[in-house]
Amino acid sequence: MDFQMARRMSDIKASEIREILKITEKSEVISFAGGLPAPELFPVEEIKRVNKMVLDRDGQRALQYSTTEGFRPLREWIAHRMNSRLGTSFDCDNILVTHGSQQALDLSGKVFLDEGDVVFCESPTYLAAITAFRAYGCSFIEIPTDDEGMIISELVTQLEKCENAKLLYIIPDFQNPTGRTWSLERRKELADISARFGVAVVEDNPYGELRFEGKTLPSVKSFDIAGNILCTGTFSKIFCPGYRIGWIAGDKKIIRQYVLVKQGTDLQCNTIAQMEISKYLELYDIDAHINKIRTIYRKRRDLSVQTMEEVFPTGVSFTRPQGGLFAWVELPAHINSRDVLEKCLEQNVAFVPGGSFFPNGGKENTFRINFSNMSEEKIVEGLNRLGAVLNKFID
Amino acid sequence: MDFQMARRMSDIKASEIREILKITEKSEVISFAGGLPAPELFPVEEIKRVNKMVLDRDGQRALQYSTTEGFRPLREWIAHRMNSRLGTSFDCDNILVTHGSQQALDLSGKVFLDEGDVVFCESPTYLAAITAFRAYGCSFIEIPTDDEGMIISELVTQLEKCENAKLLYIIPDFQNPTGRTWSLERRKELADISARFGVAVVEDNPYGELRFEGKTLPSVKSFDIAGNILCTGTFSKIFCPGYRIGWIAGDKKIIRQYVLVKQGTDLQCNTIAQMEISKYLELYDIDAHINKIRTIYRKRRDLSVQTMEEVFPTGVSFTRPQGGLFAWVELPAHINSRDVLEKCLEQNVAFVPGGSFFPNGGKENTFRINFSNMSEEKIVEGLNRLGAVLNKFID
Repeated sequence: MDFQMARRMSDIKASEIREILKITEKSEVISFAGGLPAPELFPVEEIKRVNKMVLDRDGQRALQYSTTEGFRPLREWIAHRMNSRLGTSFDCDNILVTHGSQQALDLSGKVFLDEGDVVFCESPTYLAAITAFRAYGCSFIEIPTDDEGMIISELVTQLEKCENAKLLYIIPDFQNPTGRTWSLERRKELADISARFGVAVVEDNPYGELRFEGKTLPSVKSFDIAGNILCTGTFSKIFCPGYRIGWIAGDKKIIRQYVLVKQGTDLQCNTIAQMEISKYLELYDIDAHINKIRTIYRKRRDLSVQTMEEVFPTGVSFTRPQGGLFAWVELPAHINSRDVLEKCLEQNVAFVPGGSFFPNGGKENTFRINFSNMSEEKIVEGLNRLGAVLNKFID
Repeated sequence: MDFQMARRMSDIKASEIREILKITEKSEVISFAGGLPAPELFPVEEIKRVNKMVLDRDGQRALQYSTTEGFRPLREWIAHRMNSRLGTSFDCDNILVTHGSQQALDLSGKVFLDEGDVVFCESPTYLAAITAFRAYGCSFIEIPTDDEGMIISELVTQLEKCENAKLLYIIPDFQNPTGRTWSLERRKELADISARFGVAVVEDNPYGELRFEGKTLPSVKSFDIAGNILCTGTFSKIFCPGYRIGWIAGDKKIIRQYVLVKQGTDLQCNTIAQMEISKYLELYDIDAHINKIRTIYRKRRDLSVQTMEEVFPTGVSFTRPQGGLFAWVELPAHINSRDVLEKCLEQNVAFVPGGSFFPNGGKENTFRINFSNMSEEKIVEGLNRLGAVLNKFID
């Protein structure tokens, strides 16, 4: 090979998570590293049935090319669902079906970002969003975040100083990696800021349906007066990730731009996957299914938090997420979680070090714990081993 | 909306084909506009069976996240197939599964193109490749092309003058839009040029399996001494496009870079779609299936060519493709095919005007005819109507 690649390639590194996942494929490893849903909850039998129904009734159409926008009945369901839960007022033309919400992020980069633009995000933020946006040559300004969400006064200070702010990227519900949820107040403020500064917002929401307690809060989008806010969603966490079906929602004019960009990117999403999900939603009770998921994840969250309280040494703090898949652990400042990971791997326990969730680096004394994809027995055993390792570091 | 989008958005327009396709959804329209495979040939019953088998045996895995690289048995099949047909020597790690070959083009843009780079292509070339690459801010140099392929002396002249040549994009087999196939000689020469100038090549090959006569030619990749050449492929034309499963193949080092880029773009392709295709390939005779497709498309090609010969006026020339889905029509220079299309639509006949297949514009006296997705009766009727319209323009 004697050719030249694009400049962006020098910034593109393997996702640390995906690399750790490879190590943890061995069955003896107790892994808190992934973000995988519990596969025992996938509705396999129901999917078999809807596959047969779709192919029996409409096989040729299900296997053919279709529109870039996505399968209309599915987009209608998504719009209706968002309106009833999140205070939006969408119809199907506000929705573009994407390859998981990850593609919604990539397309957002393509729609909004020129080289040298700035993306504002929570600190820390979702690792793969950093990768997606960075491919378009942007830099990041991280805004300090507390248990209520982004600290808005800091955001304003930074926006006032920044000449090429292009995108605000936020995950207000059960954030990845911290598990935190934004307060109502901060949501309203963020929407106001977006209008005041004329900056687009991507409100990423893959976990919002997985609330364990308390009331669903309206989306930031529901307070959007300027039409600047886009929302993502996905079937990966409430149905199955293997289908790679998610969406992006927003004002029709901007969604039309996303559609054009998706045309050139990969034409459209899998036709039959969209029709199967749509048929499933028509025939089965998705709320009952989500309740099943929530109940099990809630138990796992409870057990994780309880075990961490019992076995983690003093000086280690962690979040108690109200939903989602993740908790976030902070160690005393002098401890590097990559060193902890090394010792843990010797004990066949894995997690993701927190450093890579900070686009500009730093905070190596943090790590992320996933609790959705493991038996209760393994959660206790794994966290006990992890606690023992931590005790040695802190002693 | 009061935000700013990326500069690239001012270049991104709706695909003319996709827009015409919307008009032609009316059942009374005889459309030569699409590039759709014949849906009556989709193996619907077999797919029902493999879906059930995959879900019975391996349901949880089929619906879960999986690796970015793609399902290993499927990649093994692809490598083996390419080696036996195209003179390559790949194994599964030379292959990345993509969302159709369209995504292979988008990822190629991301891997190779900086703003201001130049892509060299045939003139005319595949419309959606232009869109895919243009999103990364490149410009195009079109190389004149005859019935043997790109005119290599012209390519050399242009490469010598160009300081930021980054990519050569070619479709050597049954090209879209012209239906032309490159000679063996030109393939060898192109591979040499790529090594001599240190420029990467994307050899796009969605139609190669659909040869109606003559012998399969080795790929350009098979003459690659520098490791500069990447090949795309897809299941869309030999199986079903609705699955959105294609691939890109090349030297392992560069494929590894594509994998990293795909990670940030959409994580991975649909797991169950990959497993179903793999199971289908294991249980059924894909060669017999492809033969069925070839036989029918050959008949439709024969009938199209014969009818065009009968009803098109003198002064109109067209290609006689040895395979694939498309023929290319050239009108006398003063006739604009968009005007012809307007009159044809009044007669409920559609095609794609040729102008948009030239990235730098021009050649409005051309158009593309698709013959794969229509009954023989409609082919004759449609081309007769088209011939009548052309006669009025040329009289």
